Amino acid sequence: MSVIKNKFLITGATGFVGKYVIEYLANRANAQLICTYRRIPKETNNRNIIWEQVDLNDLGTLITIIKTHQPNYIIHLAAESSVGYSWKFPVQSFRNNINIFLNLLEAVKIAKSSCRILSIGSSESYGIVNKENLPLKESCPLNPVSPYAVARVSQELLSKVYIEGYGLDIVLTRSFNHFGPYQDTRFVIPSFVSKVIDRKNSNSKIPIETGNLSIVRDFLDVRDVVKAYIGLLEKGKSGEVYNISSGEGFTLQNILSQICDILQYPVQSIINPDFIRPNDNPVIIGDNSKLREEIFWQPAYKMKDTLEDIIYSRSPKSKISVATQIH
Amino acid sequence: MSVIKNKFLITGATGFVGKYVIEYLANRANAQLICTYRRIPKETNNRNIIWEQVDLNDLGTLITIIKTHQPNYIIHLAAESSVGYSWKFPVQSFRNNINIFLNLLEAVKIAKSSCRILSIGSSESYGIVNKENLPLKESCPLNPVSPYAVARVSQELLSKVYIEGYGLDIVLTRSFNHFGPYQDTRFVIPSFVSKVIDRKNSNSKIPIETGNLSIVRDFLDVRDVVKAYIGLLEKGKSGEVYNISSGEGFTLQNILSQICDILQYPVQSIINPDFIRPNDNPVIIGDNSKLREEIFWQPAYKMKDTLEDIIYSRSPKSKISVATQIH
Repeated sequence: MSVIKNKFLITGATGFVGKYVIEYLANRANAQLICTYRRIPKETNNRNIIWEQVDLNDLGTLITIIKTHQPNYIIHLAAESSVGYSWKFPVQSFRNNINIFLNLLEAVKIAKSSCRILSIGSSESYGIVNKENLPLKESCPLNPVSPYAVARVSQELLSKVYIEGYGLDIVLTRSFNHFGPYQDTRFVIPSFVSKVIDRKNSNSKIPIETGNLSIVRDFLDVRDVVKAYIGLLEKGKSGEVYNISSGEGFTLQNILSQICDILQYPVQSIINPDFIRPNDNPVIIGDNSKLREEIFWQPAYKMKDTLEDIIYSRSPKSKISVATQIH
Repeated sequence: MSVIKNKFLITGATGFVGKYVIEYLANRANAQLICTYRRIPKETNNRNIIWEQVDLNDLGTLITIIKTHQPNYIIHLAAESSVGYSWKFPVQSFRNNINIFLNLLEAVKIAKSSCRILSIGSSESYGIVNKENLPLKESCPLNPVSPYAVARVSQELLSKVYIEGYGLDIVLTRSFNHFGPYQDTRFVIPSFVSKVIDRKNSNSKIPIETGNLSIVRDFLDVRDVVKAYIGLLEKGKSGEVYNISSGEGFTLQNILSQICDILQYPVQSIINPDFIRPNDNPVIIGDNSKLREEIFWQPAYKMKDTLEDIIYSRSPKSKISVATQIH
């Protein structure tokens, strides 16, 4: 007896979020995962996972992949997701966000696939916002202020064109910052954790260099993000945009302090002007009630839970050290 | 005694609008024109014009051009300006609109040029509009409904990022349809003219195939468009968006009738479904009062003037023929 499979095509599957999507789906009996990678695949013995090397800039290969595997769902994670990188390398950032997304839509159209696509956007699309609009609802006007954010707004606009003009089935997100164990240290929280652990291990009092610590961001645990993504593929409405957020804001200063508290190692910080972006949002907090109400999602992790998981995954030594000091 | 030159870098100078920009500027004593082309330059003996072969997808070459010539003004005409083409070839259309525009901004930034850039956008950015918003003011919300229009909205958003984030000097337009002698027959009015002339020359009664003739568009003579572009470079406000429009709307049916009237050769039309776009705007008319008030621009040509100029430029035989029939 053959089992009807749900086939998920996951682009950018080797990245931070990809790892958690694979973990979430790989052990479902009826899920088959087609995971794309650019350079090096992850090793896996799971027979529900097929790895395919794809340059997403190459439309022809994408069409072939979709025709060959006939996915029911596409989770498009491949992206250049650093705002800072987009200020330094706008051309590359833009291409690796919007052009590859457009290729994906074209490939689905040309392959005549009826699959559902998850278009992952960003809270950065809201841009500089008025305080009275906080927490941000999906109806808030978009005012992108970085090259990265412009690419994300363009992605939403292109999605709408492909939904209305070509009948594609796309659910859209505006994902707020996410974090969790194994995130690259280019991102702010892993960078803080790494630096405080280094200071602690070498018993150093040298201040850590940071950007603007007064900005407020809404961080959601990557495992809660992934739960929302799969929920939206299964229960979200086509053409609708959903905030993926914790609903809570923390200053980066507060997060740094929590990291120091968990590690029980206080460090000072100084601002390095090189880390200041040309134009940044002072406060971003997202209203997640649409997600909660429409797909009955709720987050499982609090800020402190995730910070602890990051610290312990990063440095088991620290865990012991902390534990020793606690007891 | 050396004369201070105003140097204009004109991208896409071999195109329809480029021809008229060159005509407008080339005989100014203090203007030097650096005209870029991709494949074949226009011949010219005017020593105020330098032709440079540039692939605008190549950022390095663009930087060199800007560093070498140090333009005071850039008129960025290079674009894939057909909405129909963008529905057929979205990937190529998008790249030749937004990616080359981003390269241009990057080149100006990297070359540390303080030049003023004219970012030419489109009325298509308004998308499907409510009747009560007609004629469209610049404050009307943008709702792009074609791949072409998304690229144009993205261009505005990127311009704002580069103005606020990097201090570039950019004046923006939303140009409504323009037309005039020597426009490519891929565009609707030259296509109508060409078909009616063909029917007349062969005394044929075969109906001409068209798209939706009930849509209303605001067509401005290309010579009035160019006058607005140069005026905006000289007197427009950085970061501001200006409609470039006639302020009047005509159905395509009405324009076809006027062409038949001028040629004194009535033809029937039938709709070819291949010419119908997946999603189109029923009515677009632009309010040009901001342009009139801020730079004291006014149009010199009426619809009928331009149609006559197109017809006579296209077929001197028709002119004689019409003249013979009139007298």
